[in-house]
Amino acid sequence: MLQMHHEIGNMLESPDFTEVTTTADIRKQRHGNRAKCLQRLVRLGLPVPQTVALSFETVRNIANGQMPDLTSLLGVFEADPLLISVRSSSEAADWGGPGTILNIGMNDATHALLSERLGRERADKLYLRFIRSFAIEVMRLDDAPFLDAQTPAAAMAEYAAEMDDAFPQDPTVQLSEVLRSMARAWEGTSARLLRQAQGAPADAGLGLVVQRMALGLAPGQSGAGVIQFVSSVTGEPQVTGRYLGQALGREALESNAKALFLTKDPRGPSLEELLPEVYAELVAAGALMRRKLRAEMQAEFTIEEGRLAILDAVRVKRVARANLNIVTRLARDGIITRQEAMMRVEPQELSQLLHRQVDPAATITVLAKGIAAAPGAASGKIVFDAAAAQAALSRDEPCILVRRETSPEDVRGMHASDAILTERGGMTSHAAVIARGLGVPCVSGATGVKVDHDAKQIILPDGSTLHDGDILTVDGSSGRVLSGAAPMVEPALDGAFGELMTWADDLRDIGIRANADTPADAALARTFGVDGIGLCRTEHMFFEPGRLTVMREMIFAEDPGDRAAALERLLPMQRADFIELFTIMQGAPVCIRLLDPPLHEFLPSNKEGMRAMAEALDIPLSRVRAHIESLNEYNPMLGMRGVRLGVAIPEIYEMQARAIFEAAVEVGRNGTPVVPEIMIPLVSAQREVELVKRRVDALAASVRGESGTELDFRLGVMVETPRAALRAGEIAENSAFLSFGTNDLTQMTYGLSRDDAGRFMSAYVNEGVYPEDPFQTLDLDGVGELLLLGAERGRAARPDVVLSLCGEHGGHPESIAFCRRAGFDYVSCSPFRVPVAKLAAAQARIRHETGPDGGA
Amino acid sequence: MLQMHHEIGNMLESPDFTEVTTTADIRKQRHGNRAKCLQRLVRLGLPVPQTVALSFETVRNIANGQMPDLTSLLGVFEADPLLISVRSSSEAADWGGPGTILNIGMNDATHALLSERLGRERADKLYLRFIRSFAIEVMRLDDAPFLDAQTPAAAMAEYAAEMDDAFPQDPTVQLSEVLRSMARAWEGTSARLLRQAQGAPADAGLGLVVQRMALGLAPGQSGAGVIQFVSSVTGEPQVTGRYLGQALGREALESNAKALFLTKDPRGPSLEELLPEVYAELVAAGALMRRKLRAEMQAEFTIEEGRLAILDAVRVKRVARANLNIVTRLARDGIITRQEAMMRVEPQELSQLLHRQVDPAATITVLAKGIAAAPGAASGKIVFDAAAAQAALSRDEPCILVRRETSPEDVRGMHASDAILTERGGMTSHAAVIARGLGVPCVSGATGVKVDHDAKQIILPDGSTLHDGDILTVDGSSGRVLSGAAPMVEPALDGAFGELMTWADDLRDIGIRANADTPADAALARTFGVDGIGLCRTEHMFFEPGRLTVMREMIFAEDPGDRAAALERLLPMQRADFIELFTIMQGAPVCIRLLDPPLHEFLPSNKEGMRAMAEALDIPLSRVRAHIESLNEYNPMLGMRGVRLGVAIPEIYEMQARAIFEAAVEVGRNGTPVVPEIMIPLVSAQREVELVKRRVDALAASVRGESGTELDFRLGVMVETPRAALRAGEIAENSAFLSFGTNDLTQMTYGLSRDDAGRFMSAYVNEGVYPEDPFQTLDLDGVGELLLLGAERGRAARPDVVLSLCGEHGGHPESIAFCRRAGFDYVSCSPFRVPVAKLAAAQARIRHETGPDGGA
Repeated sequence: MLQMHHEIGNMLESPDFTEVTTTADIRKQRHGNRAKCLQRLVRLGLPVPQTVALSFETVRNIANGQMPDLTSLLGVFEADPLLISVRSSSEAADWGGPGTILNIGMNDATHALLSERLGRERADKLYLRFIRSFAIEVMRLDDAPFLDAQTPAAAMAEYAAEMDDAFPQDPTVQLSEVLRSMARAWEGTSARLLRQAQGAPADAGLGLVVQRMALGLAPGQSGAGVIQFVSSVTGEPQVTGRYLGQALGREALESNAKALFLTKDPRGPSLEELLPEVYAELVAAGALMRRKLRAEMQAEFTIEEGRLAILDAVRVKRVARANLNIVTRLARDGIITRQEAMMRVEPQELSQLLHRQVDPAATITVLAKGIAAAPGAASGKIVFDAAAAQAALSRDEPCILVRRETSPEDVRGMHASDAILTERGGMTSHAAVIARGLGVPCVSGATGVKVDHDAKQIILPDGSTLHDGDILTVDGSSGRVLSGAAPMVEPALDGAFGELMTWADDLRDIGIRANADTPADAALARTFGVDGIGLCRTEHMFFEPGRLTVMREMIFAEDPGDRAAALERLLPMQRADFIELFTIMQGAPVCIRLLDPPLHEFLPSNKEGMRAMAEALDIPLSRVRAHIESLNEYNPMLGMRGVRLGVAIPEIYEMQARAIFEAAVEVGRNGTPVVPEIMIPLVSAQREVELVKRRVDALAASVRGESGTELDFRLGVMVETPRAALRAGEIAENSAFLSFGTNDLTQMTYGLSRDDAGRFMSAYVNEGVYPEDPFQTLDLDGVGELLLLGAERGRAARPDVVLSLCGEHGGHPESIAFCRRAGFDYVSCSPFRVPVAKLAAAQARIRHETGPDGGA
Repeated sequence: MLQMHHEIGNMLESPDFTEVTTTADIRKQRHGNRAKCLQRLVRLGLPVPQTVALSFETVRNIANGQMPDLTSLLGVFEADPLLISVRSSSEAADWGGPGTILNIGMNDATHALLSERLGRERADKLYLRFIRSFAIEVMRLDDAPFLDAQTPAAAMAEYAAEMDDAFPQDPTVQLSEVLRSMARAWEGTSARLLRQAQGAPADAGLGLVVQRMALGLAPGQSGAGVIQFVSSVTGEPQVTGRYLGQALGREALESNAKALFLTKDPRGPSLEELLPEVYAELVAAGALMRRKLRAEMQAEFTIEEGRLAILDAVRVKRVARANLNIVTRLARDGIITRQEAMMRVEPQELSQLLHRQVDPAATITVLAKGIAAAPGAASGKIVFDAAAAQAALSRDEPCILVRRETSPEDVRGMHASDAILTERGGMTSHAAVIARGLGVPCVSGATGVKVDHDAKQIILPDGSTLHDGDILTVDGSSGRVLSGAAPMVEPALDGAFGELMTWADDLRDIGIRANADTPADAALARTFGVDGIGLCRTEHMFFEPGRLTVMREMIFAEDPGDRAAALERLLPMQRADFIELFTIMQGAPVCIRLLDPPLHEFLPSNKEGMRAMAEALDIPLSRVRAHIESLNEYNPMLGMRGVRLGVAIPEIYEMQARAIFEAAVEVGRNGTPVVPEIMIPLVSAQREVELVKRRVDALAASVRGESGTELDFRLGVMVETPRAALRAGEIAENSAFLSFGTNDLTQMTYGLSRDDAGRFMSAYVNEGVYPEDPFQTLDLDGVGELLLLGAERGRAARPDVVLSLCGEHGGHPESIAFCRRAGFDYVSCSPFRVPVAKLAAAQARIRHETGPDGGA
């Protein structure tokens, strides 16, 4: 009874439907992914039951009431009695589609025939099952009475009562209703929204696949199952799946089904033992598909009286880690190229691999949701301030720092925490940026959460409260806040990861550096094999308790002498920082940004802090308050910071330059000479660069003289004001490099403070006012144009000027592709984004050289 | 004895000196302004004593020790005995130069000769005077002994004692010392700084003029004087000057000299009566100079035994008002063209004419100095808050509002004040901008002044204090704070002003509109003949006490219903504003900007205010505080304001659009239809414009329907983010006009908050980091490029798009010239800047069409 396709069969192509044969014109863009895949299986000579594909256009016509000639469609099939299934076939597998309907063609006559051939019980089962799904899924009747009905007759009676009409006996009528129902379901609003969320265009079409049923519900060795040959979790070779005798479709996967093992297993019987030839045939099919379809496939199969039919095959579902393993293995086996392997990994997936995750299988209680601000997950005791976090660290007690929002004073505490949760702020708030830099999981802007620092409690959206010391889990990858300590999955960086990184390094033609502010950051960046440090923000070095006091003395200095004395004490500390940094990064460039934030960031913002500071500096509280007030700014982002500070109080930059040079000399003595890169922030006029350059050059000359050592260095500019981008030509005359700081550049180009934008950004993006959050996705139209203008003018004035991007965007694939096209030398991103950036850089080159699909 | 130049005299041109004859090659750029002017007088046939000019190069050589051949120089002069004077002749009259030295050539021999010819007493006077000035001014000896010496012999004895050398008898030695001394004085540091402050280049040269003395100290009708034929104060024709018999040089001007009147005068004898022919000759010379030199000149003259010599002539010194009168009169008389007349008025001078000034002649006590933030001067009682200012106004008592800094809450009080003084802030602080807009004199950022609001006192730089109710004068034109009520000069807008404005209007080819927020502003703008209103900031309309409460209710609305109710109450108030505005401006366009500032600007910032608000709104103080806190922003400039507010709370813009449309319909009913212009602030993406446009269009349709009237309007965009400038092409598709708001655009292009820049801007400009304060002078390189890009792209997308500039720069001549070149349709500035802008616009066209000197 089971008949397979032949190379030359009863081919029929009508304008409305096409039999799936080796030579038929089946296209993914017209018939969908499943139809095309089935044709590939046919071409491989696999035992696929006879199949007919309906194009997107046909299905659209069906939805509009225009049914194809179903009599001739059914005439294609060479079987009697004929049972068929209908499956959806959209263009991309993850765009969804209505569920499969089996056993179309069952009617009283077929029932009688099959009762004879397979036995009454099986015929009843087939008929009942069809009536149920026809009533519930096609005619949308209430399911309960049909699930209650235990015989075809009872179900048909129920159907007649509900519909005021007998259950249709004509297979063309049955098929017609099934097709119409599936065509219309595709047009439903929720289906449309779901697929659009997966990237489907508004006019995405649905194809349908009509396939003759192979009957797993038949005498002898009959049944159905699914099989794949790799693990979905690890990607390692491993036969996985289920087989259930006397079953149809995916029944084997239902959790309560008593399925067989596939391979020999001490715990019970297996398909391998029961039907060794069929098992071997499946294994061979798997190997064939892997080789020819160049992917790991999961097959849905039926065994009808001992003979194998393969109904469908899809790419194996997989987690990020498994995908990595699968594609590198395919490349290693020569089935796909390394380039294809790289194109098959979504760069963002890599960042999952670098962090602990909440176990996807675990049962969890979500207390609140916020913005997934820094990836990874951690559990620990709640603390409400930086000091408590540091105390917890000293006791080796995991802790979660909870703040309304964070400020630079909290950085040490953030470093000491296992995760961070803030009531306010978006993806680019202080908490989020620092947490990503530190690699600490963070959820920011938790909706409905109120943090009460005074009472040391968190009020949750449901009104309940959490207190100091309660255990909490923060999942910075998903933005969820979970009750208690959720079970975790450890990060897994296996050989495949390293292999992929090597391939990406070999291929990419744009540098990847890391933003690293501390020796710890730098060490981490080195483990990811960066090309150097692209941005070392020196301000974070001043927040360590001992230094902060000296820094404050410097700020409060009454005269140049006092200021010089304070700076004199900061010098050895800074020098020690840079010695450590240069030692870790030996052989790779390090770009150090001179002090950038406004001085008030180093001063306490609350009364307690002011009192402590007054004591530490031994000055009256009133003076502390007055000075802090005098430094207060309306718009600190646009105030006295960056090079403005460097021009107004040149001694600060001079101290920093000296620390850098002395460290370079020191570290250079024991190995390769260190050529530090010094970057001037917030430049808006070339004269600012000239003034700083003159002083830095003079200091270099002094250090050369004092140390008797040659000392080379590069001075460059952080381009973060629109004006610096526009005037890049004249600025480049005094700059060895221009590094575009796209965080600030985006703020200024839009006139939008990222600290304040959180309030309306999501609404803005949802309403499509901005297509994307420009702090997340580089705005190519506006900010991007300034980058291109700046690059072009910089290069025109100084052909060897080194160009780079060091904003948050540096770790994003689109920005990397953009910078590569613009001929930038490197991008710099937080250490944990480095793998993402490397892969994205390699992909950008592949896409550029082979076209948008990258040959994959 | 007196001999004049002849057309063909003893011409001598050496490489070192040139006799000033009609044909000599005398150039202003080589010999200086005075030498050139003397040549012109010679050419007019005026009785100028024989003169030799030394070029810049010659004088530079003298300073370097290389003296020209003085024997041949003196040989030029045809006189015996020969007395000469040396005068400085720099390229521009106001670059200064060393003082004149007279009577060179006096020695014992000349003294003997002149004793015979003029009498001993006169010869003694001449000799003594020369010895004195030679000793004091040339040899730099202490002046006291020489002033004490009453005879040449005594003075010569003193000289010999001081110098250990006899007084030089050789005229070439005398001349040599004079020339060397003057050449070196020019190179002195203070002289250099003074002339550079007047715009002289670093290498500005000094020429010297050697002239034969005409002896006013001679028998018969001899004397010296100065004369001019217009008033320096009014510019009206009026013979002014002094004449003193038996005098030399400018002795007549010494205050204790018993000078003669020039014209007949009942109070005493006059030159006109004494020497009617000479007087007539002077009058004729004045008329000749006016006609031929095309300027009102002041002549220095000497009468030697009844014969007139004109020694020198300079343009009449004049105040702004006199200048205006002089140049319009010259043009009316056909001596210069109207265009030349316009080129001879510095646009900035006009703003002086519009305001009261401190009497320049008055004795004043300067208490402090600050930034001249808004022109004009006023005296009044000190008040420390807006309420007190309003109370003073209600009592008709002039008052000066003194604040540490001002905020939008103070605007009503600022309006009620006669002048404003702030401790903090620069030219573009809130106080400065609003004060200029309101036309209220303002000194901001008063150095060393401390304002103590609580104690209601001002601590002055010298430590003394002023209290509530004390009388003070604020001079916003000079930045001075004066003790008590200083005497004032009233503004004078006479016929010449109106005439000049008419000429400017006829000539200028760029529109001038005014920024006007209130009906009072609009009425003022109309008196200056504006082409329309270019920027009406609606937010100021909400600060009136009654409205502010409703505005706050709107902000505090708990649900859309409450919000709608509050807006419903604001609607008639806004409509009334616009009806008044449209009525005043009937026939001229009015561009209204939709609400721009962040909502927190409408909320109180101190405890008192919050308490008052809690009472007014009948809600708990804690809610007021919490809501205000929640609206707090890190960088309000870059926060939730402008169109972001319009997108987030569309009801506000809808209410405003309705008020505008209803007012337009109402006012249009009684006359020409009103075509309002509606401007969307802070746009950064074209979709923002689309969203607002859709709602505004819908409202226009509603109002058309409700009123049964046709209603036309224009919707446009305020381009004030760099991104809006870059994306002007797509933005223009939905915008009838693009108005560049260069205040914010400058802030964002530089990444510089104007509220915070005051702290370092003056240092930055002084050190040349920025060539100018970019908030004062439009930054053509950066911001200007964005303007050009935006204009070009906007026009490419929509050729009929109307382009304009409406920032503070709109009233500055350079910006106006720039906008004109860029093809802008108009600029908009504060009403008091309109005359300046009109003249600058006319000048820009003249310069463009006739070259940089404008033919003047």
